[in-house]
Amino acid sequence: MKETEVAARGKIFLVGIGPGSEAHMSARARQAIAEADTVIGYVTYVRLVAPLLEGKEVIRKSMTEELDRAVEALERARQGKTVALISSGDAGVYGMAGPTFEVLFAAGWQPEGDVAVEIVPGASAINACAALVGAPLTHDFCAISLSDLLTPWPVIARRLEAAAAADFVVALYNPKSGRRTRHIVEAQRLLLRHRAPDTPVAIVKSAYRPKQRIELTTLERMAEAEIGMLSTVLVGNSRTFVRHGLMVTPRGYGEKYVFDEGERQARAGEQAGRSLSSGLEGWLREIRASGESPASLARRYALPEDYLAALLAEESDG
Amino acid sequence: MKETEVAARGKIFLVGIGPGSEAHMSARARQAIAEADTVIGYVTYVRLVAPLLEGKEVIRKSMTEELDRAVEALERARQGKTVALISSGDAGVYGMAGPTFEVLFAAGWQPEGDVAVEIVPGASAINACAALVGAPLTHDFCAISLSDLLTPWPVIARRLEAAAAADFVVALYNPKSGRRTRHIVEAQRLLLRHRAPDTPVAIVKSAYRPKQRIELTTLERMAEAEIGMLSTVLVGNSRTFVRHGLMVTPRGYGEKYVFDEGERQARAGEQAGRSLSSGLEGWLREIRASGESPASLARRYALPEDYLAALLAEESDG
Repeated sequence: MKETEVAARGKIFLVGIGPGSEAHMSARARQAIAEADTVIGYVTYVRLVAPLLEGKEVIRKSMTEELDRAVEALERARQGKTVALISSGDAGVYGMAGPTFEVLFAAGWQPEGDVAVEIVPGASAINACAALVGAPLTHDFCAISLSDLLTPWPVIARRLEAAAAADFVVALYNPKSGRRTRHIVEAQRLLLRHRAPDTPVAIVKSAYRPKQRIELTTLERMAEAEIGMLSTVLVGNSRTFVRHGLMVTPRGYGEKYVFDEGERQARAGEQAGRSLSSGLEGWLREIRASGESPASLARRYALPEDYLAALLAEESDG
Repeated sequence: MKETEVAARGKIFLVGIGPGSEAHMSARARQAIAEADTVIGYVTYVRLVAPLLEGKEVIRKSMTEELDRAVEALERARQGKTVALISSGDAGVYGMAGPTFEVLFAAGWQPEGDVAVEIVPGASAINACAALVGAPLTHDFCAISLSDLLTPWPVIARRLEAAAAADFVVALYNPKSGRRTRHIVEAQRLLLRHRAPDTPVAIVKSAYRPKQRIELTTLERMAEAEIGMLSTVLVGNSRTFVRHGLMVTPRGYGEKYVFDEGERQARAGEQAGRSLSSGLEGWLREIRASGESPASLARRYALPEDYLAALLAEESDG
C-alpha cells in the first residue's frame, strides 16, 4: 500500500550525556537514546552508554570525524529515522551541536522541514570536575580549548592572556594530546604573567568514570602533572584557595560582612541584600566625587580611558 | 538503649537540579533528594522539585540567604540527618557549593568528620539556554555575573572588557533585577567597544520551565529586551550568526577545509586531523622566520611584547 504511506518525520537528538556515568545523565538524555534507531558518537562516548544500545544501529567514529558524524545523522534522519548524536558533557560545549548545524545548513535543512532537531543539555566537564574538587566556579569563569586543530594559536593565546588579566577562573578543555604537548606549557606561561605561582590548579581525568583521577597542584607545577586527552584543567582565580583537599573560590561574602563568633554583620557602609558600596551606583558616585581625570581613573581601575570619560560626561549631564 | 546508639554520619548533598524540569535532572540529583530528610533552597527552586518533597522537612529561603541555608544544613547534618541543599542549574556555578564550604570551614568542619558532603553536578543555565537557541557555545566562552551585591563594579567591568576584547562568547548571569537596571546597559556599552552592533544575543528566561521565553536580538538592542531575575543573556562572539532562528558559533571548520558540493577538502597547507598551519608550532615557525621585532609582532597579534620576546629568545636558543 505504497500510496498511503507517509514518510515519518526524522529526528536528530543532540545528546549531552553528562560526565559519563549513567547516574549523572538526565532522564531526557536517556529517553532520547531509548527512542533512537541509530546512535552515533566518538568511540569512547559510545562505550559509556553501552548498556542503553541493545538493538540499535551504532556508529562509532574517531575523534576528528565530527562532520562525518553529522552527515551520517542527517542521511538517516532524512529516511525518517531517529538518530541520537551523543557528546560527553554538554552537546553544546565544544560538542556536536555546532558542527551538526553547520552540516545541516550546508545541506539546505530548515527547522520546519523533514528533520526535527532537539538538543538535550548536560553537565559539561567543567561542572563535573568542579563538583569533584570542591567549589572552584563560585565566581566568574571561562572555558578555553587549547586545541589548535581549528583555531589559530594567537587567538587562543589572546584569550588566555585576557582571562588571566581579568582574574577569571579558567577551565582548559583539550589541554594536551599525544601530538600537542607544548600548548599547556604556553598556557601556563601566559597565566603566570598575571597570577601567582601558587594559584591552585585541579586536573581531573575521566570524571565519574572508572578511571577517574584527581590531582590538585599549583600553576607553577601544572605542566609537570599527568594531563591527557580526557583531562580537564581548572585554574583558580587570585582568591581561590585549597583547604582540607578542597579547591574553593570565594563568592565574596568577606567584601560585605564581618564574621564574629558565627554572627554575621554587615561591614560599615554596607547593607545586607543590597549592592556593595563599591557596586555600580556607589562606584559612579565615587569616581564623580573624586575629581580625578579619566586617564587617572583608567590607571587606578585598569579600565579603558574612553569608558571612564563617557561615564563622567554622562554623570555631569545627569 | 542510649548506650548502644551510634550517631549516624550526617550528609549534605549540594544538588544541581539542572534547568528546572524533572526531565533534565540527573538520576543522582533525584536520588539525593529522595534520600534527604531535609530539603533547603531558594523558594523558586524548591517549587521546581515540589513533586519529590513529600514527607520531608522543607526549608524555603529568600534569594540573599545563601549563608543561612548553609548554616541550617550543617546544623541538621550534625544531628545525623541527610540534607539536600538545592541550586538550580549546577550547584557549583554561582550556586550553593561555594557559600556552603565557606560556612563549613568557618565551623571547623573537616571532610573525614561527622558530616559527609557530596556535590551533584547539573547542567547550568548556560547549557540550558544554549540548547534552546542553537549552538552558541561551540567556541570559547565565559560566564560573568552582573550582580554587584558581593563584587565591586570595576572587577565586573574589567571582565566584560577583557571578554569582549578577546572575542569570547559571553554568558551574563544575574543580568538584571528590580534594583539593578543599569548594569545590563553598562555591560552592553563595554561589549560594544569591541563587538559589532549586530552581534547576535539570546535572552532566555525560565529555560525548560512553564514560563520559558526565548528572544533573539542583537547587542545594539539588547538593553531594550525584557530581562529579569530568571533570565540568562548569551552574547555571541565575532563569528556567531543567526540562521533560521538558530544562534550558532562556528567551531572553525572553515579555517581548515573548503566545502565543494558536499565534499570536504583540506585547504592548501592544512592537514585533516592535525594542528592548523597557524597553530602553535606553525605560528612559532612563522614569527621566527619573519625577522620582525617583538614589538612589531606584539602589535600584529595583539599579544604582550614580553611574551613574544621570550618566545623568540627560546626559539633562537633551541
